[in-house]
Amino acid sequence: MQTVSLKLSPTEFHFRAKRLLDHIKRQQLSGAVLFDNFHVTYYTGFAFIPTERPICFAMNADGERALFVPRLEVEHAKAEAQAERVESYVEYPGNPHPMKQFAEILRRLEIREKIGADNDGYPWILGYQGEALSSLTGAQIIAVNPFVEHQMMLKSDAEIALIRESCKWGNLAHRLLQKYTRVGANETEVSIRAGNEATLAMIDALGSLYRSQSMWSRGASAGYRGQIGRNAAIPHALTTNAIFMPGDVLVSGANAPMWGYNSELERTMIIGAASAEQKKFFEHTVALQDTALAAIKPGAKCGDVDCAVRAYFDQHDLMSYWRHHSGHAIGLRYHEGPFLDVGDDTTIEPGMVFTVEPGLYAPHPSTSSGQAVGGFRHSDTVVVTQDGIEALTYYPRDLASLTIPV
Amino acid sequence: MQTVSLKLSPTEFHFRAKRLLDHIKRQQLSGAVLFDNFHVTYYTGFAFIPTERPICFAMNADGERALFVPRLEVEHAKAEAQAERVESYVEYPGNPHPMKQFAEILRRLEIREKIGADNDGYPWILGYQGEALSSLTGAQIIAVNPFVEHQMMLKSDAEIALIRESCKWGNLAHRLLQKYTRVGANETEVSIRAGNEATLAMIDALGSLYRSQSMWSRGASAGYRGQIGRNAAIPHALTTNAIFMPGDVLVSGANAPMWGYNSELERTMIIGAASAEQKKFFEHTVALQDTALAAIKPGAKCGDVDCAVRAYFDQHDLMSYWRHHSGHAIGLRYHEGPFLDVGDDTTIEPGMVFTVEPGLYAPHPSTSSGQAVGGFRHSDTVVVTQDGIEALTYYPRDLASLTIPV
Repeated sequence: MQTVSLKLSPTEFHFRAKRLLDHIKRQQLSGAVLFDNFHVTYYTGFAFIPTERPICFAMNADGERALFVPRLEVEHAKAEAQAERVESYVEYPGNPHPMKQFAEILRRLEIREKIGADNDGYPWILGYQGEALSSLTGAQIIAVNPFVEHQMMLKSDAEIALIRESCKWGNLAHRLLQKYTRVGANETEVSIRAGNEATLAMIDALGSLYRSQSMWSRGASAGYRGQIGRNAAIPHALTTNAIFMPGDVLVSGANAPMWGYNSELERTMIIGAASAEQKKFFEHTVALQDTALAAIKPGAKCGDVDCAVRAYFDQHDLMSYWRHHSGHAIGLRYHEGPFLDVGDDTTIEPGMVFTVEPGLYAPHPSTSSGQAVGGFRHSDTVVVTQDGIEALTYYPRDLASLTIPV
Repeated sequence: MQTVSLKLSPTEFHFRAKRLLDHIKRQQLSGAVLFDNFHVTYYTGFAFIPTERPICFAMNADGERALFVPRLEVEHAKAEAQAERVESYVEYPGNPHPMKQFAEILRRLEIREKIGADNDGYPWILGYQGEALSSLTGAQIIAVNPFVEHQMMLKSDAEIALIRESCKWGNLAHRLLQKYTRVGANETEVSIRAGNEATLAMIDALGSLYRSQSMWSRGASAGYRGQIGRNAAIPHALTTNAIFMPGDVLVSGANAPMWGYNSELERTMIIGAASAEQKKFFEHTVALQDTALAAIKPGAKCGDVDCAVRAYFDQHDLMSYWRHHSGHAIGLRYHEGPFLDVGDDTTIEPGMVFTVEPGLYAPHPSTSSGQAVGGFRHSDTVVVTQDGIEALTYYPRDLASLTIPV
């Protein structure tokens, strides 16, 4: 009997590797070398916390896959990674430096000239310092990022199933967040309680089917990221432990990483009856999101979606409240390309998964009320189909449903 | 009346900037450009979540500091950043690309030739793609990482005070973790409950004095990261929602980011009476840690500490259980340089803060018992003083204190 699991199958990883191999051959590369942790996870299924200890993936023109890890990750990598070999170095910085050994492994794999790579060496994070790949190998380095990123943009049915499952538990966390958000409560307390209960329900419901496989979170979460009242106008503010007050405009966020895959659900909620001005901004927010949703279709450009949204901003004289583009792709990363941005001319294709989230931010007192209004943003996760989109998020978007009673 | 706060003062940031300026002058650079998010936070106090939208810091040879952010971060950056100017671009990818505008700002700041930088352009994370700094400016790029990393290694009294405060709340989270860890409980449930309660106690105790200013966590946390029983032998395994069983050897971790600063507390705990073999490994773990602690002193090399630890491994025939070096520095980052590693010849100086954490990992059945033993590691955070070290961690390290009753 086969064990039921939501985990991606080895077949999925063979298919991914095959596509990369096709690219290597088409470009007449000696192989591909990847340093970005999400790129490594994408091709091997090995999820890990990136540190100053390099973890690198290499594939040669025969399709042989090697994962290079520090000694302390060997058992973990052998248990999890889809790769023909797991090679290890003792430690970083070590003596000799791990990259000397990696260069030797590349030589043995006959990855020698014209190497496709996503970076010219391991990135200098958390104090890591080391030689560039070009200098280590003497090879010409060809950027493979455009290919890798494009492959990652097109989600398989199995990936979409994980994102769909993520949406469910993000929905639960957000439902609880809304339920516990009350005047006088602290945002941290409410966020913790909602995330806690949603996570426990999820792991009891999914049992061994579930792993977060995320370095960011071990379960479902929902919170405000500091976007409370006046602070709501700062789109990415970090948390400030605010106490909820009547009249606050809240911008929330919820997610539940599912075997590494993310979804995004964000809602604007208002504590108590919305003022006329808040109501006006709320309605524009929904209309802006509708504008974006209507513009996403196979064959259109990502930039077209953002142009349609900006046209709405212009028509309604809202540009002074504009702060960011209309959305981004999502998957193993909470943000990834392509972007629903005027400057992104990527063609939209079936299998792309986007967050759709135009926002309005009114941090300064308007002339009519003398009060700051706040930030307004809904974010829904959608997948592009053969002829349009399917919404994966199903949380209500209307003001009545998103008003917190006082 | 001055408001009490644990937040670092503007003076602290002026002092940091002054040191960087001295370096710029000494090296006859036209200025410094930093892309790493922790480097930017270190010099400006502006904490943010790095995304595909570049955020960059520049300082010219007159000491003028500029922070370059997307439109959506302008209010946030102006409110938080210690910098003479906050410059913004519309959006990424945008049109034109933000880096074109950044190059223009560098020209206006007269950062033109011989630029000190921590990377040749914004790193290609989360789908970001863009031109290298050298290509944008035509300037020679000189690595400033060694200088910046060295400056960050030497913590000020204010930074040490934050790490000390972090230790307290990490201690509480760990105390609760230990209290709730019982046979039959799920690691996720226990971790959530401990982190939840410790965080609520902390924010009630510290009130407005507290901000996590971390993208990883909004409060105190404690957990097992999957290091339960057999999995305990995989040092950095991600969580697996294990159920605690008698005989499990657990390796825990606790932290509470305090205005961005981290501490590390890790303990080996055993559920029920330790077997003779577990006891032997536990005692070696404590002895190894004592060996490392005794070797950390100003003037010694980081490598000396690891050599002393490795000598203990050799003397007691333990190298087959060795997986990683003896520790690392900690601060704004949960790992940073220098490393207590044979390959790190950095001289230990007062003000450095290290985790001290040699570990033993026995994943395979030993001949004597036929059973896998598990992983063993304590991690304590210590600060180097004028003549030795001061422990910032004060959680008990002995087996009796770390045995979970069954």
